Amino acid sequence: MTNKIEFLDTTLRDGAQAVGMSFSHRDKSSIMELLDGFGIQLIECGAANPKDREFLKTVKNNKLTVFGSTRRKDNSAECDSALNGLLEADTQTVCIFGKSGALQAERVLGVTPDENIAIICDSVSYLRSHGKRVIFDAEHFFDAYAQNSDYAISVLKTAAQAGADTVVLCDTNGGTMPWQIYDVVKRVISELPPSVKTGIHTHNDCGLAVACALSAVKAGALHVQGTFLGFGERCGNANLSSIIADLQLKMNIDTGCDLTRLTATARQIAEIANVRLDEGMPYVGLSSFAHKAGMHVDAVLKDSHTFEHVLPESVGNEQRLVLSDVSGRSAVSHKLYALFPDLDKTNPKTEEILKRIKELERDGFQFDTADGSFTLLAKRMLGAYKAKFEPIGYRITESKPDGVSEAEVSIRVGDTATTVKQSGNGPVNALDKALREALTRHYPDIASITLADYKVRVLDFAAATGAKVRVLITSTDGRSSWTTVGVSTDVIEASWTALKDSFEFRLCANDQKELL
Amino acid sequence: MTNKIEFLDTTLRDGAQAVGMSFSHRDKSSIMELLDGFGIQLIECGAANPKDREFLKTVKNNKLTVFGSTRRKDNSAECDSALNGLLEADTQTVCIFGKSGALQAERVLGVTPDENIAIICDSVSYLRSHGKRVIFDAEHFFDAYAQNSDYAISVLKTAAQAGADTVVLCDTNGGTMPWQIYDVVKRVISELPPSVKTGIHTHNDCGLAVACALSAVKAGALHVQGTFLGFGERCGNANLSSIIADLQLKMNIDTGCDLTRLTATARQIAEIANVRLDEGMPYVGLSSFAHKAGMHVDAVLKDSHTFEHVLPESVGNEQRLVLSDVSGRSAVSHKLYALFPDLDKTNPKTEEILKRIKELERDGFQFDTADGSFTLLAKRMLGAYKAKFEPIGYRITESKPDGVSEAEVSIRVGDTATTVKQSGNGPVNALDKALREALTRHYPDIASITLADYKVRVLDFAAATGAKVRVLITSTDGRSSWTTVGVSTDVIEASWTALKDSFEFRLCANDQKELL
Repeated sequence: MTNKIEFLDTTLRDGAQAVGMSFSHRDKSSIMELLDGFGIQLIECGAANPKDREFLKTVKNNKLTVFGSTRRKDNSAECDSALNGLLEADTQTVCIFGKSGALQAERVLGVTPDENIAIICDSVSYLRSHGKRVIFDAEHFFDAYAQNSDYAISVLKTAAQAGADTVVLCDTNGGTMPWQIYDVVKRVISELPPSVKTGIHTHNDCGLAVACALSAVKAGALHVQGTFLGFGERCGNANLSSIIADLQLKMNIDTGCDLTRLTATARQIAEIANVRLDEGMPYVGLSSFAHKAGMHVDAVLKDSHTFEHVLPESVGNEQRLVLSDVSGRSAVSHKLYALFPDLDKTNPKTEEILKRIKELERDGFQFDTADGSFTLLAKRMLGAYKAKFEPIGYRITESKPDGVSEAEVSIRVGDTATTVKQSGNGPVNALDKALREALTRHYPDIASITLADYKVRVLDFAAATGAKVRVLITSTDGRSSWTTVGVSTDVIEASWTALKDSFEFRLCANDQKELL
Repeated sequence: MTNKIEFLDTTLRDGAQAVGMSFSHRDKSSIMELLDGFGIQLIECGAANPKDREFLKTVKNNKLTVFGSTRRKDNSAECDSALNGLLEADTQTVCIFGKSGALQAERVLGVTPDENIAIICDSVSYLRSHGKRVIFDAEHFFDAYAQNSDYAISVLKTAAQAGADTVVLCDTNGGTMPWQIYDVVKRVISELPPSVKTGIHTHNDCGLAVACALSAVKAGALHVQGTFLGFGERCGNANLSSIIADLQLKMNIDTGCDLTRLTATARQIAEIANVRLDEGMPYVGLSSFAHKAGMHVDAVLKDSHTFEHVLPESVGNEQRLVLSDVSGRSAVSHKLYALFPDLDKTNPKTEEILKRIKELERDGFQFDTADGSFTLLAKRMLGAYKAKFEPIGYRITESKPDGVSEAEVSIRVGDTATTVKQSGNGPVNALDKALREALTRHYPDIASITLADYKVRVLDFAAATGAKVRVLITSTDGRSSWTTVGVSTDVIEASWTALKDSFEFRLCANDQKELL
């Protein structure tokens, strides 16, 4: 046994149990490869349904670990179809779960404490006799330990004696405090033979899953289960991306993982799972190293350590200075120079740009997310900018309950005016379709742009339906994405502003150098 | 000093520093009232920008705590405009932050260690001399403590001697481990006079903000800062909704908060902030007590404790069984009986109403906040309801850049059809004006109704401009207010639904008793 910590990622099993989560065969392969490439040692997959079994049959990876239950109470291990199903999966490692407490064994399985011990012993021995490495997940371990610690430990000893090289203490309902975890893990390790690894499996129902996993490691656990982004039932499983970064960067424990790929791995898994990655997720979020308040930005530019506990680059992320009505001058100018690295700092236009940004922010524009609009504004004010099209105007009609939403959009490219009419399932959708079609006639590349996000925020400067609204639109061409903003008392007009800038941004993306 | 833990919520200050977050005056008042009603003792607000100062001027609440910096190095406290600004805010409590370490004081403020001590001493004394309760936030405390623990503690002692009754250890960059927090808090408490409260302020950069706050409380901290939903710069502040529930339910510490309102408070704050509440947020998320896997659902029905560490009802949330789709029944029926206390429980219509509500919720309607629409729906389905007007339809036209938004609305009252055309500063505003004028011709009372709030939420981000939107409209007649909801892929149509129900609700407000 080495002292290196082993990670088991169960995104494909526990993660798939999150509400709204479902993975295709291709999704599973892609996630497996990402986890493998990052350095995760064990990748768990279920075998309970046909889709899982088919996946296990077609994909080969030494790290794949199949997960299942101990034998049923009335079967011998040899005749238990579920156990035999685990053998068929043909993985090197099998993880099986069993009951840790007498009460649960009786209530859920309907067996005596001794029968429960026999079930665990038989199941582990059977899998071992077929040459499998066996990990034993002790379900509800901490609840069982609280009820009868001796029995709970005897369950672990049984699994170990039967050949499991790792026993995992599961905080199945996520209700245990980190200091309780620490004490229990300490005791367990002192009772088990040193050849057996103790593992930890925690859930986030108290907002403490990461802390509980770290506490277990501090107490001597050498195997940590979780999901890379914390996906999982209820409040989720322990977030492995946070745990691994904490262990490596804060506790100086060598995890063997390539931390510079942490952020990219996280974002790609989120993409595959079709989940919007929490912008504030520790280490890997879009905003995890973002600074907005004026004073903080000043401090971070003087000494990044003041508001960054680790270097963003160490986890493959990057610092982000965002703009807002609380941000000072230094953030705006820093961002401007970051976008236009060749810009002459004595250029008097920079002052004008900063002033204009402040004015627009007072009017309700928001540039902390709308990088696309910020860039366009700067390009326009720096001059030498040639618009790729001129928006002439639009006309919207809508009749309800009979009738549809229609938009007629006119643009000019060079000397050619183009007018397109489209209907849509709402006026903004119709506007989007009409503008897109008009532009595509001149710039076929437009077809590759899709809108990834559309947000509406009502601002409070006037009352109710007469209030200003802010529209944010995020577009992507598959490689990169950008956000534009529009503000108006009219949601359609605000959407129009954000929409046309969204296309314009992409069309002039390569025009930067010539104007500085 | 009591031993009760005091909570300071900084959603309105630190929370507002999250990327994309911005609160209107009305948003701030609403959030303040929700936090107050839940039982939070101190509600922090900044004073650095004009919007904040205007808010502080117009709103009165004993719990409001203004936040600012210690004096500038070259000013006396008496002549420091920022300190005097804090006094002008006219709150009972002031929270000021200062540097905890010699290095930071030198690097960021350009002052010697002794000058830093003098700055803190003067600033606290000055505020105390004006009768304020003073809380001292020791910025970067844990980093400073690691560099020179004696100096860091002398900073705290200075603040305490100058009259601060609470000194708060801030893990400003979120990089400290819970066990380090525990040790440092223990030491600090042993060094300070017992009359001084020690507080904790943590950030989630390592995914440990909640654990760090709980560790501090275990070590004796009696003041906890955070934001109710964890909003905040970078990875966010400590999530107070998780901390309070953990303290009360897992550590048996009386928080004095009304936990049965935890979930409702969280969801209303998210709604006001226009943020999608994380479905898996501990205790308060839509999925925090959701069970999807077949085996787990079985186990949870046998014994809910197996997969629920606390009763969902204890935090105002509810169990959700995703497969069987029986979610939310009890909450909906509870609400129905609350609105119609005389409703006969054997009335078969109640079953139909519950079913219809569930269908609409699946379509994106939300009745948590839209009491007006809920009431109307129930009245309509309970029969004996006579609509005050029949909406026939509307027609919208808008031309830009020349031309205006126009709406033509037709309604029928009795046998009389009325059509009114109005222009507005946007199609929804025009619709509102036209419908209002048409109704006023029949019901002059309508003139007393004003729209107090208008919110738009995009429901399905991936579908961009073709996505469904939910519109919430809050109206008031000066005495009471009510909220109605509309959902459509078309923002105008969704607004129309919410608008006409908003007027209808008021017109039939007194029709309740006759139908039960």
